[in-house]
Amino acid sequence: MWSSAVLSLRLRASCYQGNRRSLATVISGNKTSRLVRERLQQEVEKMRTLFSGFRPGLVVLQVGDRDDSNLYISTKLKAAAEIGIDAKHVRLPKTATQAEVLQSVLSVNANPSVHGLIVQLPLDSVNAMDTELITNAVSPEKDVDGLSCVNAGRLSRGELGGCFLPCTPSGCMELIRQTGVSVAGKHAVVIGRSKIVGAPMHDLLLWNHATVTTCHSKTPDLPAQVGRADVLVVGAGRAEMVRGEWVKEGAVVIDCGINHVPDETKASGKRVVGDVHYASANQRAGFITPVPGGVGPMTVAMLMENTVQSAQRFLLKNRS
Amino acid sequence: MWSSAVLSLRLRASCYQGNRRSLATVISGNKTSRLVRERLQQEVEKMRTLFSGFRPGLVVLQVGDRDDSNLYISTKLKAAAEIGIDAKHVRLPKTATQAEVLQSVLSVNANPSVHGLIVQLPLDSVNAMDTELITNAVSPEKDVDGLSCVNAGRLSRGELGGCFLPCTPSGCMELIRQTGVSVAGKHAVVIGRSKIVGAPMHDLLLWNHATVTTCHSKTPDLPAQVGRADVLVVGAGRAEMVRGEWVKEGAVVIDCGINHVPDETKASGKRVVGDVHYASANQRAGFITPVPGGVGPMTVAMLMENTVQSAQRFLLKNRS
Repeated sequence: MWSSAVLSLRLRASCYQGNRRSLATVISGNKTSRLVRERLQQEVEKMRTLFSGFRPGLVVLQVGDRDDSNLYISTKLKAAAEIGIDAKHVRLPKTATQAEVLQSVLSVNANPSVHGLIVQLPLDSVNAMDTELITNAVSPEKDVDGLSCVNAGRLSRGELGGCFLPCTPSGCMELIRQTGVSVAGKHAVVIGRSKIVGAPMHDLLLWNHATVTTCHSKTPDLPAQVGRADVLVVGAGRAEMVRGEWVKEGAVVIDCGINHVPDETKASGKRVVGDVHYASANQRAGFITPVPGGVGPMTVAMLMENTVQSAQRFLLKNRS
Repeated sequence: MWSSAVLSLRLRASCYQGNRRSLATVISGNKTSRLVRERLQQEVEKMRTLFSGFRPGLVVLQVGDRDDSNLYISTKLKAAAEIGIDAKHVRLPKTATQAEVLQSVLSVNANPSVHGLIVQLPLDSVNAMDTELITNAVSPEKDVDGLSCVNAGRLSRGELGGCFLPCTPSGCMELIRQTGVSVAGKHAVVIGRSKIVGAPMHDLLLWNHATVTTCHSKTPDLPAQVGRADVLVVGAGRAEMVRGEWVKEGAVVIDCGINHVPDETKASGKRVVGDVHYASANQRAGFITPVPGGVGPMTVAMLMENTVQSAQRFLLKNRS
């Protein structure tokens, strides 16, 4: 599917062969996410034609009114609308109780016209909320964020076809695929072990047959571990912590970090950087994702991918 | 709790310091599992006294009549009886349908006097069985084998207190603890990614703060990976595949393998060996588990541990 894009990246990479390569090939998340969204739009159109007006349904459930959540949700709703997904924003007030939130989740679970349910985190409520309990109340068949225990368990055991892949790691895999580099038999290093990035990233790389090392805050020899990575995925949440001189020559470097650092040259007084020191890593990596414009745009695209996939599974089960 | 045992292992290890150590300290699973079972016996006795005759309840559900399953089950029932666990063996005939097996699982789930349910695998039936479906039908609160998706998901995300640890990896951790070596900050290497050994072992080591590398059949440079392991856990299922010369000097080596190889000097014509070449690894490791008598006896002990823990959780929830 990506053959022309892969070819183009490969051609660019091959220009550097023979001589000392000066800069890594940039893996564009903007471009890749656009390709994913275009493909999804076509798939939704096909479903609509084949199944008389059928559309994948998505619900974003929000508790409270955080500014950052509002922004993320509007990005998701916009992407869904462009693809043809029927997305609804369900808002509960800050005063909602846990029982009311759970009731909303269960009602969406029971609604056959909704194929994906996202509970926007963090829950912004004046009442105590057990986020884990609420996340796990989402039906595994609609958990397009891939955050429930059941999904995590399936992924950790390599049942990739039976689960929803968490969106950020799934986006990273899509970007790695873009390079044309196969991870099978390679040494991959993941920095971070969070449930939305590091832990599922490990599983995805492992079940795509890489030998995987997971590093974290307790790893004493991070530069040496990074130096052995053919594929490096960083989700550490620390600005520019991975230095270029640590990176193995020719490695694929995927940076999940989004950090705001002071920058007096900007009107806002700050700029966004990743967890990798881009300028130096760029000198050694074979392929690298920029920040912004790398992993970031992929997350929403893969959420849409999961929603379309869920709708396809629904059709397969109920209309064939 | 293990202080005297740890001290004794440490004293033995320290005898070798200064001079070139000739042999690794053997970590005995027979001895460690006996200590675990003795402790559990005391805990069960305490529950019985405090809660007027209360006993942890365990059910082993068997479909069919495989000889190997019969042997494993009798070992489990014997261990349970010694500890004071009320264990029942529920047998379904080979002709049982999947619906009947599921019905049995649900009936045990609903029985408040049973705190642990093991579905003995493989299911020996003339009918088609979805093992995954049946394993996942076991209530996560009674899944003392730790094999359901929900348990695997919790473990993969580091929720160690909220899940049942799969018995073999849990036994390996107990053996590692016996050495007095802390895995935090160490480099651990796991060979194998099965759902009962490798995958949960990775999670356990990671959430005990080791940097963990998972190797498998697609790993091209196994000797080099093994050579970096401070802690090595092998669950590959291949007789003596890890050679002593690969092992890092002083490493903790845990061998989960049980392989039968031909041996004409034995009356049976065969003997049991692990996945590690013991005679050579013994020359380099700091600590090593023998086969048999290493990880093997721990598995049943940790199953009992999970059952007692489940009963304690039940009491905490229902009688406090």
